[in-house]
Amino acid sequence: MLEQIFYPVSIAVVGASRDRGKVGNIILRNVMSTFTGKVYPVNDKVDSVEGLPAYRSLVGIGEQVDLAIISVPKDAVINVMEDAGKAGVKGAIVITSGFRETGDSGARLEEELKTVANKNGVRFLGPNTMGIVTPSFNATFTYVDVKHGGIAIVAQSGGMGAYMLTWAQRTGTGLSYFVGLGNQADVSEVDVLRFLGEDSETKAIFVYLEGVSNGPRFLEEIPEVTRRKPVAFLKGGASNAGAAAAGTHTGSLAGSYELFRAAVKSVGGMFVDDLRDLLNLAKVVNSNEPLRGDVLVITNSGGHGVLAMDEISRNSLNPAKMPPRIQSELTLKLPAHASPRNPVDLGGDANAELYAEALRVVQDLDCTKLVIVQALATVSCVEVARAISRMRGKGLVGVVMGMDEDAAARILDAAGVPAFRFSEDAVRAISRYLNRREPRLKLRSPTPVPGAIDIIEGKQYLRDEDAFKLLELYGVRVPPWAVVDDPNVAMKEAERIGFPLVMKISPDEPVHKTDIGGVRLNVERDNVEGYFAELSKMSKRVLLQRQLAGVEVFVGGIRDQVFGPAILVGLGGIYVEVLRSVSYGLSPISEQEALEIMSESKVVDALTARKRGYDVGSTARAVARISNMIVDLNVKELDVNPLIVNENGAFAVDVRIKL
Amino acid sequence: MLEQIFYPVSIAVVGASRDRGKVGNIILRNVMSTFTGKVYPVNDKVDSVEGLPAYRSLVGIGEQVDLAIISVPKDAVINVMEDAGKAGVKGAIVITSGFRETGDSGARLEEELKTVANKNGVRFLGPNTMGIVTPSFNATFTYVDVKHGGIAIVAQSGGMGAYMLTWAQRTGTGLSYFVGLGNQADVSEVDVLRFLGEDSETKAIFVYLEGVSNGPRFLEEIPEVTRRKPVAFLKGGASNAGAAAAGTHTGSLAGSYELFRAAVKSVGGMFVDDLRDLLNLAKVVNSNEPLRGDVLVITNSGGHGVLAMDEISRNSLNPAKMPPRIQSELTLKLPAHASPRNPVDLGGDANAELYAEALRVVQDLDCTKLVIVQALATVSCVEVARAISRMRGKGLVGVVMGMDEDAAARILDAAGVPAFRFSEDAVRAISRYLNRREPRLKLRSPTPVPGAIDIIEGKQYLRDEDAFKLLELYGVRVPPWAVVDDPNVAMKEAERIGFPLVMKISPDEPVHKTDIGGVRLNVERDNVEGYFAELSKMSKRVLLQRQLAGVEVFVGGIRDQVFGPAILVGLGGIYVEVLRSVSYGLSPISEQEALEIMSESKVVDALTARKRGYDVGSTARAVARISNMIVDLNVKELDVNPLIVNENGAFAVDVRIKL
Repeated sequence: MLEQIFYPVSIAVVGASRDRGKVGNIILRNVMSTFTGKVYPVNDKVDSVEGLPAYRSLVGIGEQVDLAIISVPKDAVINVMEDAGKAGVKGAIVITSGFRETGDSGARLEEELKTVANKNGVRFLGPNTMGIVTPSFNATFTYVDVKHGGIAIVAQSGGMGAYMLTWAQRTGTGLSYFVGLGNQADVSEVDVLRFLGEDSETKAIFVYLEGVSNGPRFLEEIPEVTRRKPVAFLKGGASNAGAAAAGTHTGSLAGSYELFRAAVKSVGGMFVDDLRDLLNLAKVVNSNEPLRGDVLVITNSGGHGVLAMDEISRNSLNPAKMPPRIQSELTLKLPAHASPRNPVDLGGDANAELYAEALRVVQDLDCTKLVIVQALATVSCVEVARAISRMRGKGLVGVVMGMDEDAAARILDAAGVPAFRFSEDAVRAISRYLNRREPRLKLRSPTPVPGAIDIIEGKQYLRDEDAFKLLELYGVRVPPWAVVDDPNVAMKEAERIGFPLVMKISPDEPVHKTDIGGVRLNVERDNVEGYFAELSKMSKRVLLQRQLAGVEVFVGGIRDQVFGPAILVGLGGIYVEVLRSVSYGLSPISEQEALEIMSESKVVDALTARKRGYDVGSTARAVARISNMIVDLNVKELDVNPLIVNENGAFAVDVRIKL
Repeated sequence: MLEQIFYPVSIAVVGASRDRGKVGNIILRNVMSTFTGKVYPVNDKVDSVEGLPAYRSLVGIGEQVDLAIISVPKDAVINVMEDAGKAGVKGAIVITSGFRETGDSGARLEEELKTVANKNGVRFLGPNTMGIVTPSFNATFTYVDVKHGGIAIVAQSGGMGAYMLTWAQRTGTGLSYFVGLGNQADVSEVDVLRFLGEDSETKAIFVYLEGVSNGPRFLEEIPEVTRRKPVAFLKGGASNAGAAAAGTHTGSLAGSYELFRAAVKSVGGMFVDDLRDLLNLAKVVNSNEPLRGDVLVITNSGGHGVLAMDEISRNSLNPAKMPPRIQSELTLKLPAHASPRNPVDLGGDANAELYAEALRVVQDLDCTKLVIVQALATVSCVEVARAISRMRGKGLVGVVMGMDEDAAARILDAAGVPAFRFSEDAVRAISRYLNRREPRLKLRSPTPVPGAIDIIEGKQYLRDEDAFKLLELYGVRVPPWAVVDDPNVAMKEAERIGFPLVMKISPDEPVHKTDIGGVRLNVERDNVEGYFAELSKMSKRVLLQRQLAGVEVFVGGIRDQVFGPAILVGLGGIYVEVLRSVSYGLSPISEQEALEIMSESKVVDALTARKRGYDVGSTARAVARISNMIVDLNVKELDVNPLIVNENGAFAVDVRIKL
């Protein structure tokens, strides 16, 4: 898979320039200085470039070329791709920019490029990519000298890619691959991640994306990768302003940030908020220390200990419990003014020996030991870093602060112990790494419940009675109801349903019934006739429903352009708009996933507050069933608002379905 | 004010040791190497220390000593303080630890120290402080060599203080003062901040606190300081675990993080979440660039631009609008593949000249220009830093990323342009600096409304009728009500109030009426008698209220140990517990402050959602009046839950008051 790009035996650089400031020259030199196979510069004007004979075209080389790196003016790219086909080239990297990211005419050129490449059987990365670095060659136009190692970096943006390469160089982080995705006209992020998933040298993958090229493939194939190794995702385009910028920039649809987050969770990836989080996470992933969610803090500064404990609580980690035996032992070994609890405060006059002593006592506790050292007159970071290094493999993480923190960090890096400058960074990175979850496969294929198709056939919107029937077919309960257009029938149905009632207009097209005064609550026997008269002036048909009390939950369904059917769950009623406390899932979801989403969006809290014991299980079941229905029937938009939940179950009270 | 500590003419170091690893020796050497006045080592065993003649005691010096720095074993501190009194010393810094931070016996020793010092007229910092640095001497036990400048640092924790000193040294940040507060037995953070507020060399103050020593003084006096210069606060002890650690550590009551945040806002300070935020803020405060809330991003990396725009939106700043004239000019000056919008994306091949060109075009726009450079083959950070420096004074902030970022940051620092490594850091710091507000003085002295005292006199809890009368005296509306103990009176009052009614039990002691089944909703004429019979079995007296529809708001009052009366406002009903979306204010608050708190806690959103136009003004008025009542009547706890708000106003429906 993608061998033609990542494992070439010979490489041609098309557009190889003699001008050392030009991209085409820099790439050639980078390839020449790293690749041990044959390298062919292609330049239609000169005879040699950088001491190698130059060829007029790919066809003119006359020998087998596996990979062509193309850096020619954008109007020449199509011809080069045609040549590549004729010359039997199987892989290409199109560096040239000016395609989809610049607007409609660029997009048309990109389509043409894709067609030509497909026709000729050439797989290609780009266009508008900054290139790749593999264990055997560097085909980028940045100068980098990174160590070989286990981290793979995939970046959609060139600048972001260059940043991460520089970061790897500065921090001595070893890389297996670097891949600039560019516009993903042919090879996409999913292709690249699958390749890296199978690559035995790659231990973990870090990805910067502005959009996903193919949502369903992402959801289906990425779990294969996350099962083998950790994959972290940073997404650009969170805000509207950011999304607009992403649109200009790589021509990708930025899509919904929240859905991307749901997708990453669903495929078992690690989601990070910003670049720093991504880089910090890399430190933790790249280390060999066995880390746990229980964290013990050891410090010579009470203040730093306080801040670290704050951050542990904020990030869903736990302060490690200090067993009495260990506490007694620490009390014996530490000076009187030290504190043997968590945080272990060694005191402002602690030296490196005292750190070593404390570490020996706690070394076998099954927890992460976050060792914070503030360089003071009595202790240096380097001394403590040495003490930590000697204890490596015991779940250690270092935070070093002082004039010699760089040197101390290098000592810890060399020992494979993650080193940070702020305890907040350490804690967040540990949390992101440990709190990722198993991927969930979305394998259910649409299998509509018998009878469902008959209800929806040929309709764009469903009337109340159809919507209720459909939900009941899917096992979602609705309160006793009737739709009537006659006052006598209304009275009869009201008696059957029972009081108090809710009466609402029931028009064919969906409207906001409350906003236009089309709802009557607390309807008793005496009011049925009068209300029917009022409401039937607004709509021929009137809905009668048993009035229920309980917590109002909102369940929404949308069809996302990228990820397809998705479900939203949150607190209902006005709180949907006011709080926007809604969490997302990609349909279909299981009851377990429904429960997770309900927890995130505080629905579970609302159902269980004041010990009321409302039916959480039924709610999760209803949400999961609605998510199945959305998939089966290709629902475009759905609002169940509210789903009323009480001790008897979860009941869909108001439903709007667009097909 | 505090001249005896900060402006001494002569200094004695008591406990000056010959051992160069001991705190008492390090302090002496630091003082000797910085102070130009007389220095007297005091040591009762040797005749000289570090080449100076040593004295047996303070009294034995026989010359005027202004400041005594005390670093002797804790059991000797009291005697030294007595000596100081006899020798006419007026100021002291007690370095020695082992006092309140270690428990009860230490606390008693600290009280004794305070008494002795007061009796002798000695003002002192500490105990358990790491000392101070002033423009004329260094009396700490860390080795620091910081530049002189305009930033003052105040730290309660020694380790945190050392950290900030190291940071100043590493970044070349110039300091006016550094003050380690220690246990604040005598001189408190308020004293120190007032001194620094009046100090003409101090431009801005950065404070790390774990607790406030005296809430009312903090609230009353800090506004004097923030009116003159920016003051930033970082609080340790946010979480329970953190607060517990803070308790161990400095013996201070960590107090409520949320109330501290409210207090900082109220006094016009800047509140930061963590150490990094504090340090980044210092960069912005320390620069001379005129910054604005509208931000224009200029970058050579689309990806970085996208992330920066995201962060701008997240931090209540605005993307600057690009005027068409400027956009046209940029289009002329920039290459075709660049984007002249916001972010201005100069393209991956931009060089420093292109940056300079773009900066010239946008220089006079009234906005912050966030210039992001990713070092690439065609451009280095240093080159762009030079271009930025030449344009300084135009609202510039730099973000430099690449191998030469350190050098570039130094160039920007030297030019007085804030320099960052992550655009997130830059954006957050700008936001914290610009989004601080004017201090609010809490000057209202308790002036109970006539008649209020008569109602509350001698009571611990108020019965429903007293609570309603009290609220009405304070101008807070309540729905029509009656408390009755007779079925016939109930019927008569019900007719007067109007239907539908709410009927509730009305016992003398407060109970959760709903939880024990003591509430009947939607009561019509027919039900009054029956419900009265049911409820009067549970409590002799029964409350009748007109039933209102509207949004439920929660208003709470507490009396905080540190800050005194405070008010909480949030969405009411079950959402108080579920969402904990509650914001805090320190009572009394104005209507304007009430409005701010209501905005923070989404109450305003709820009142205005779906264009319903519920009465926001009346709600703010009611909240402000309740906050006055809390202060006037010394209310211990108060719950108005709910305050029901609709188009007719805000009505207190259920009230619990503890005096």
